[in-house]
Amino acid sequence: MGKRVAIIGVGNSRFGKRDDVSIQELAWESIKEALNDSGLSQKDIGLVVVGSTAYRGVELYPAPIVAEYSGLTGKVPLRVEAMCATGLAAALTAYTAVSSGLVDVAMAIGVDKMTEVDTSTSLAIGGRGGNYQWEYHFYGTTFPTYYALYATRHMAVYGTTEEQMALVAVKAHKYGSMNPKAHFQKPVTVEEVLKSRVISWPIKLLDSCPISDGSATAIFASEEKVKELKIENPVWITGVGYANDYAYVAKRGEWTGFKATQLAAKQAYEMAKITPNDVEVATVHDAFTIAEIMGYEDLGFTEKGKGGKFIEEGQSERGGKVGVNLFGGLKAKGHPLGATGLSMIYEITKQLRDEAGNLQHPLKKYIGLVHNVGGTGHFAYVMILRR
Amino acid sequence: MGKRVAIIGVGNSRFGKRDDVSIQELAWESIKEALNDSGLSQKDIGLVVVGSTAYRGVELYPAPIVAEYSGLTGKVPLRVEAMCATGLAAALTAYTAVSSGLVDVAMAIGVDKMTEVDTSTSLAIGGRGGNYQWEYHFYGTTFPTYYALYATRHMAVYGTTEEQMALVAVKAHKYGSMNPKAHFQKPVTVEEVLKSRVISWPIKLLDSCPISDGSATAIFASEEKVKELKIENPVWITGVGYANDYAYVAKRGEWTGFKATQLAAKQAYEMAKITPNDVEVATVHDAFTIAEIMGYEDLGFTEKGKGGKFIEEGQSERGGKVGVNLFGGLKAKGHPLGATGLSMIYEITKQLRDEAGNLQHPLKKYIGLVHNVGGTGHFAYVMILRR
Repeated sequence: MGKRVAIIGVGNSRFGKRDDVSIQELAWESIKEALNDSGLSQKDIGLVVVGSTAYRGVELYPAPIVAEYSGLTGKVPLRVEAMCATGLAAALTAYTAVSSGLVDVAMAIGVDKMTEVDTSTSLAIGGRGGNYQWEYHFYGTTFPTYYALYATRHMAVYGTTEEQMALVAVKAHKYGSMNPKAHFQKPVTVEEVLKSRVISWPIKLLDSCPISDGSATAIFASEEKVKELKIENPVWITGVGYANDYAYVAKRGEWTGFKATQLAAKQAYEMAKITPNDVEVATVHDAFTIAEIMGYEDLGFTEKGKGGKFIEEGQSERGGKVGVNLFGGLKAKGHPLGATGLSMIYEITKQLRDEAGNLQHPLKKYIGLVHNVGGTGHFAYVMILRR
Repeated sequence: MGKRVAIIGVGNSRFGKRDDVSIQELAWESIKEALNDSGLSQKDIGLVVVGSTAYRGVELYPAPIVAEYSGLTGKVPLRVEAMCATGLAAALTAYTAVSSGLVDVAMAIGVDKMTEVDTSTSLAIGGRGGNYQWEYHFYGTTFPTYYALYATRHMAVYGTTEEQMALVAVKAHKYGSMNPKAHFQKPVTVEEVLKSRVISWPIKLLDSCPISDGSATAIFASEEKVKELKIENPVWITGVGYANDYAYVAKRGEWTGFKATQLAAKQAYEMAKITPNDVEVATVHDAFTIAEIMGYEDLGFTEKGKGGKFIEEGQSERGGKVGVNLFGGLKAKGHPLGATGLSMIYEITKQLRDEAGNLQHPLKKYIGLVHNVGGTGHFAYVMILRR
């Protein structure tokens, strides 16, 4: 293996409808926070990856523009994209740059500004993430309809209920209302979720994550650099896993979970030499409430088919078996595609440093996990973090 | 430093107007050739990076679609983009994945299908690569006009002539006509170049690279894997360099060369422990003829201001001091954005293996260089390859 790599600085902009800033200003909010957090300045960074889907309507080529505005010109050679998993794709790229010894310090910036595009265009862009020829073109499949396919299958096979899904939204909004950076700041009740407008049954408006603007940044350093800089609170990346699956959903063969997540999790657990039972705090990619329930199972937090029970029993609450999405999740914190994965790293880093304030999960082993899905399971990333 | 990394397989599709294939079929042409060249099959590849600008009008999210068609589903977690340097951005990502020990074998696929978009839209897309707010929006700057700025400055400061620029095109077309995979198959004369239509003076139609469709693929392996597989002709990556520069061209401070190239070259030469004089064969990013002349200087093949003389004296010809763009360059081979950098790796790998047939450059040290620029110097990559 290569060098050990630690996260030494993190930043997260306020998520939401951010028409008060340009994409480069939005990126700078989290870059500045990450630099301050690490005690480094721009000149200390050897390589910068920009994670962005370059969402239509804003900038086609955001990397040099973000670099220019944030004083990072010179060190930003590429942008990466993996749909909604773009943030962890950027993190993986920065991780390997440091682990290989190419640079001592790398930065991954995730940013997308999505709200400048109207919702129907967004649905079309999302739909294009699936199989155009056989699915979008013929059936008009969009993200809610794809997740509805998974949800109905999970309900049919395992008896998962709309109420259980609603509990995921209630949890997300509860924690989101305690996180001043979250897109949604208001708690919701099970009843409100169940009564909200049906988008694609059984998925309702309040089962769905919003379309958000936001940025998040993480700084990665080698073990030597951590020592040299006398970083007091490094968070180590001990496992990484990634996988992808068919764009053509009909070919996947299973619709009660994401094979890509299962493969990525296996790879990450093996590398970190831990089991799912060791994980104390996690982010699970909850683009729709059913996704979090499937995530519990795919990541091994509970048995296959028991995801509904897991939320019902409060096992994914703060203080439960695994604290999941305690900053509000995609569902309430928001989901600016490029930023989401890095915002997950921000969240788990804060947790592992005991800096999460009134959202702090009690920790013994100090082991966290981040899980970021691209598309409807097209991509999946899992990273294991430890203090 | 991390593990040593070798290129063990390369492929290059035919470049040109490829309306006979979809983007995934186009990608497969080079993937198949690279797999055959290495003796590996899809299951042997640990990680696949897709380099593509996802050129408008074709596919928004090409990575999973390319993966699906080419039997690589599972191992394709991301797409990378660095405008016209997307190919080497993908190569760098694959290189660090192997060098870090994350995987033993990685593949970088570069693909773009550009000709489905009309030329004026292409010019607008290119223009958006510059600074939108101050340049494109006010002045309508496009790629030819940006390069014309550099060309007129080089002419004014160093006395570079239109005839010297034309010689770059003549060289490119000569070699392109000997490369059956090149977009253009016909030699041109200095007179024809000089008399061709002015696009943005002094840049004429025949000073400009075409808009092309194409793909190229390279497979990267660790030293242990090279031994295990008993690869007979590995080509080692001994130096990598990258840099970026302001999107806002007016801020750059120099318009007779690309600072990003100069920085990337310095980094790559230092890592490879060689000087420019050691380089025997190279690809230089010749989006416009002036770009190749500036490249000779920025890469240190000749002194600053002497690039025009370098081509005039035949020093960049096959058999000259440094054989440059002997497969036809962007100018005649074509320039499908995502593919170009990997096509450069294909070319130099073939040269270093003495497999370039009637385009073979005579080699003593077996040291080659690839140079890929993104935008109008927004990004630059340099890699040093050795047999």
